[in-house]
Amino acid sequence: MYEIQVFVTLKEAVLDPQGKAVNHSLNQLGYSEVEDVRIGKVLTLTMNGEKETVEARVTEMCDKLLANPVIEDYRFEIKEALAQ
Amino acid sequence: MYEIQVFVTLKEAVLDPQGKAVNHSLNQLGYSEVEDVRIGKVLTLTMNGEKETVEARVTEMCDKLLANPVIEDYRFEIKEALAQ
Repeated sequence: MYEIQVFVTLKEAVLDPQGKAVNHSLNQLGYSEVEDVRIGKVLTLTMNGEKETVEARVTEMCDKLLANPVIEDYRFEIKEALAQ
Repeated sequence: MYEIQVFVTLKEAVLDPQGKAVNHSLNQLGYSEVEDVRIGKVLTLTMNGEKETVEARVTEMCDKLLANPVIEDYRFEIKEALAQ
């Protein structure tokens, strides 16, 4: 059993209006020290599989479904989890 | 200058229909080894401030705006970043 955390973030060149809105709200609330906010996703996958193939399979999933390679970058961390 | 990564995830008891949909799609695409998917947010804040107060300020921001404490948990990591 593996627990994989996939971090999907907008590429740096891509505008992030949601982040800008949160940045603005934080400034309005008095947190004027905040200069930039970027918002991404974190997906936690629980999956079975062979140790050797997990990384390749998750890379495939990211390319096919989890991230949009035109505007997003992704990275992931694989942890072995105890079966419950 | 600090770079803070805030991870906001749904509490375990809260249903995650978006995660369920992604889980289902992955299974349909042939990734039948995926058993569960949970989706959260990752916010990257760039901010100034004093080392001693950054942690308390970010905790406040999470409680007030960035997370919904009724249904979400959060945690964050603070990294010192070089001013550009």
